[in-house]
Amino acid sequence: MTLPARREMLLIAFMQASNCSNYTGSWRHPDTAAGFLGLGYYQDIARTLEGARFHMAFLDDRLAMPSVYGDSYAEAVEYGVRVVKLDLVPVITAMGLAAPHLGLGATYSTTYYSPFHVARLFASLDHFTNGRAAWNVVTSLNDAEAHNFGVAEHLEHDDRYDVADEFMEAACALWDSWDDGAVVYDKGGYDGGGGRFADAAKVRRADYAGRHFRARGPLTTPRPPQGHPVIIQAGQSERGRRFAARWGELLFVIFPTAEGCKAYRDDLRSRAAAAGRGPDAVKVAPAVYVVVGETEQEAAEKLAFIDGLARPVDSLALLSEVFNYDFSQHPPGEPLSDEVMASMTGLRGFLDRVVQLSGNANPSVNDFVRWSGRGTLRELPVFTGTPEQVADGMEAWLASESCDGFVLAATHIPGAYEDFARLVVPELQRRGLFRREYAPGTLRDNLGLARPGRA
Amino acid sequence: MTLPARREMLLIAFMQASNCSNYTGSWRHPDTAAGFLGLGYYQDIARTLEGARFHMAFLDDRLAMPSVYGDSYAEAVEYGVRVVKLDLVPVITAMGLAAPHLGLGATYSTTYYSPFHVARLFASLDHFTNGRAAWNVVTSLNDAEAHNFGVAEHLEHDDRYDVADEFMEAACALWDSWDDGAVVYDKGGYDGGGGRFADAAKVRRADYAGRHFRARGPLTTPRPPQGHPVIIQAGQSERGRRFAARWGELLFVIFPTAEGCKAYRDDLRSRAAAAGRGPDAVKVAPAVYVVVGETEQEAAEKLAFIDGLARPVDSLALLSEVFNYDFSQHPPGEPLSDEVMASMTGLRGFLDRVVQLSGNANPSVNDFVRWSGRGTLRELPVFTGTPEQVADGMEAWLASESCDGFVLAATHIPGAYEDFARLVVPELQRRGLFRREYAPGTLRDNLGLARPGRA
Repeated sequence: MTLPARREMLLIAFMQASNCSNYTGSWRHPDTAAGFLGLGYYQDIARTLEGARFHMAFLDDRLAMPSVYGDSYAEAVEYGVRVVKLDLVPVITAMGLAAPHLGLGATYSTTYYSPFHVARLFASLDHFTNGRAAWNVVTSLNDAEAHNFGVAEHLEHDDRYDVADEFMEAACALWDSWDDGAVVYDKGGYDGGGGRFADAAKVRRADYAGRHFRARGPLTTPRPPQGHPVIIQAGQSERGRRFAARWGELLFVIFPTAEGCKAYRDDLRSRAAAAGRGPDAVKVAPAVYVVVGETEQEAAEKLAFIDGLARPVDSLALLSEVFNYDFSQHPPGEPLSDEVMASMTGLRGFLDRVVQLSGNANPSVNDFVRWSGRGTLRELPVFTGTPEQVADGMEAWLASESCDGFVLAATHIPGAYEDFARLVVPELQRRGLFRREYAPGTLRDNLGLARPGRA
Repeated sequence: MTLPARREMLLIAFMQASNCSNYTGSWRHPDTAAGFLGLGYYQDIARTLEGARFHMAFLDDRLAMPSVYGDSYAEAVEYGVRVVKLDLVPVITAMGLAAPHLGLGATYSTTYYSPFHVARLFASLDHFTNGRAAWNVVTSLNDAEAHNFGVAEHLEHDDRYDVADEFMEAACALWDSWDDGAVVYDKGGYDGGGGRFADAAKVRRADYAGRHFRARGPLTTPRPPQGHPVIIQAGQSERGRRFAARWGELLFVIFPTAEGCKAYRDDLRSRAAAAGRGPDAVKVAPAVYVVVGETEQEAAEKLAFIDGLARPVDSLALLSEVFNYDFSQHPPGEPLSDEVMASMTGLRGFLDRVVQLSGNANPSVNDFVRWSGRGTLRELPVFTGTPEQVADGMEAWLASESCDGFVLAATHIPGAYEDFARLVVPELQRRGLFRREYAPGTLRDNLGLARPGRA
């Protein structure tokens, strides 16, 4: 019997243009660099990731600091709970210049930006990076963001996805408003008589007219090298899954167990196939932490130290933000009423998880802190131990077809990426679970995603 | 009698993230590089400008390709009339990385973006460049842009400025939502018990509520190094001047003669003083072309060659765009009616100029082509000849206090900047009209602009 060839995993770094990583306490780690307001900080990380042959770095975003808890930003500011969020475009541009092979993803909201702007931005980025751009499509979460953009109340969960569907339709029509090869660039005879820039027969208006958006076009950029940028999506609710099955390519998800992730992956592959895209058109990559040491003992000490950096305010501020609900209104042990539960408009997947894991349809604030793990390392699966142990854990998820790869969140920056590159990547490569070189071509080529034709 | 010390001029490069420079025919020049879809192209220009000690490069933008003429984009696409317009943020980021002293300006519209987004973007850029960011505030021109953003008809000229006033109020309130020095960045004792990121008493909501915009804040970036980014503005109409006197710092203008520019500068200095800002709070820099040769003969040949690159379609496409009016509707010699003249909602300053120079309140299409100079070199003053002759011309404008410096548009790229750096800058420096080194500090410090306090 021949063993099946091992699947190679996708590796993506989960980053923030922020004072902290996804792990809020990270900024208090002594090995976290302080340079988050300078581009060199992000370029150094890009070089580390490229040296380790990561497929991509993508940057998360939020258009407000946490201010739902206690209806105030004050504690978040004092304790540095994701209060700094810088514009992502300079960051991924700088990273792309430092690392000429690394894929580069940025988060843009379909609720607070316009299709023409976002389509032009990602087409430009895709040209500038020779086909390495990815867009993480989010619908935006909470009232704090709505208030920063002058919208009185945040759209309901499902409505946001209806708007996002239109946004994607408009963006795709704009990307397709130039055919591949439309640019001729013939300067002519320099006598004012010759010269042809592009073939107008290969350029057209988008003429998109939906309920929420209209965009005439043509876009002011030739068609991007990848056709469309790679679409990252994180929908886990029923409505989010329908959206992801239609548009998503790299599905960035959060599941506490391999079983849950496998069920999601099976479902999304079926949905993508049903949508005529084929099951391999979607790649599933769960967010995880890795805490690795040369020895088990060293890893355990690192983990304990990192765990100790979390503060209670981290959890409460982030829970209030993600559920768009002020948890300071309730005593910690009080079960939340059906009405309260129904009023939470944030990330549905998170909510379902707390109900499921606590076994309680009316969880208390304590249940939310405990079972969501929000603001602590427990929010995500943690692979820890020696390089072999970490590789064992990752291999188990991959071998069970629970995922196509991983989105690596950082416990501290840049140390977590440096440790992973130095200790874990060689072990994954030794096992044939991870490549040793970049594939030629675009980010799509590296991710195993087809290039979209014109719609 | 002692001669007054010569004033040193400001030098700014006028750029486009486009297939052509401000001079549409530039792309047909044999010495125009073809790399406008790559960041290296812009970085090379940045290095040239920094080597010559330019204060700043700023990038123009337009959120649509010309498509008003004949209600079609086809001729613009065929002949490359400013049809490519890439996102500016990656471009100025890359330029800033290549040139660590050069100021960097980008155009953002107050009509099609949100204050929170723009305020965060320029605060981020100002941090990332250590205080070298400038924002060229435009209100956006024409129906093609409106259609790309799903707005059926473009706002009237004066209404656009009312919206822009609110936009600026909101942006300033957001920049001021963090005090200087609010970030403490004390990691504490690493035991989960210590650690203070920032002083919440130095952070506040913006709570901006206008007729057009609302923005709560706080912004998710600490206050920018320059306090606010430098504000570039180009208002020449009466309403535009009121806006420029209130908000503008570097006033980028187009005047065919030094006299016209001097009258504008005197007016804006008075208006700024009346607004309590002091006359030196505004710097006036007209856009000009320079065609320089080692000899008069060489310069004349260069000029004739460049002139010959223009095509009639360039003028007609750009005139229709800038006036938001389809000039293809009229025979070339027909005087335009009062009704037609009143319907033009684009750049008012341009319209006044055609009426004034033609001596005709009802100019024909031919008058527009001739007197606007749109699409040809004659749109802007051209300093041409030997380095001495070019320097004479620039010195005359400066000595008569018609301006504080110049915005140099390129006849071809990067050649026009290379010629200017190699031939003209040394002559200006020899005369004491231009500095030999960057001043320490921010772009504001280099431009002689005060740092704004918190409003």
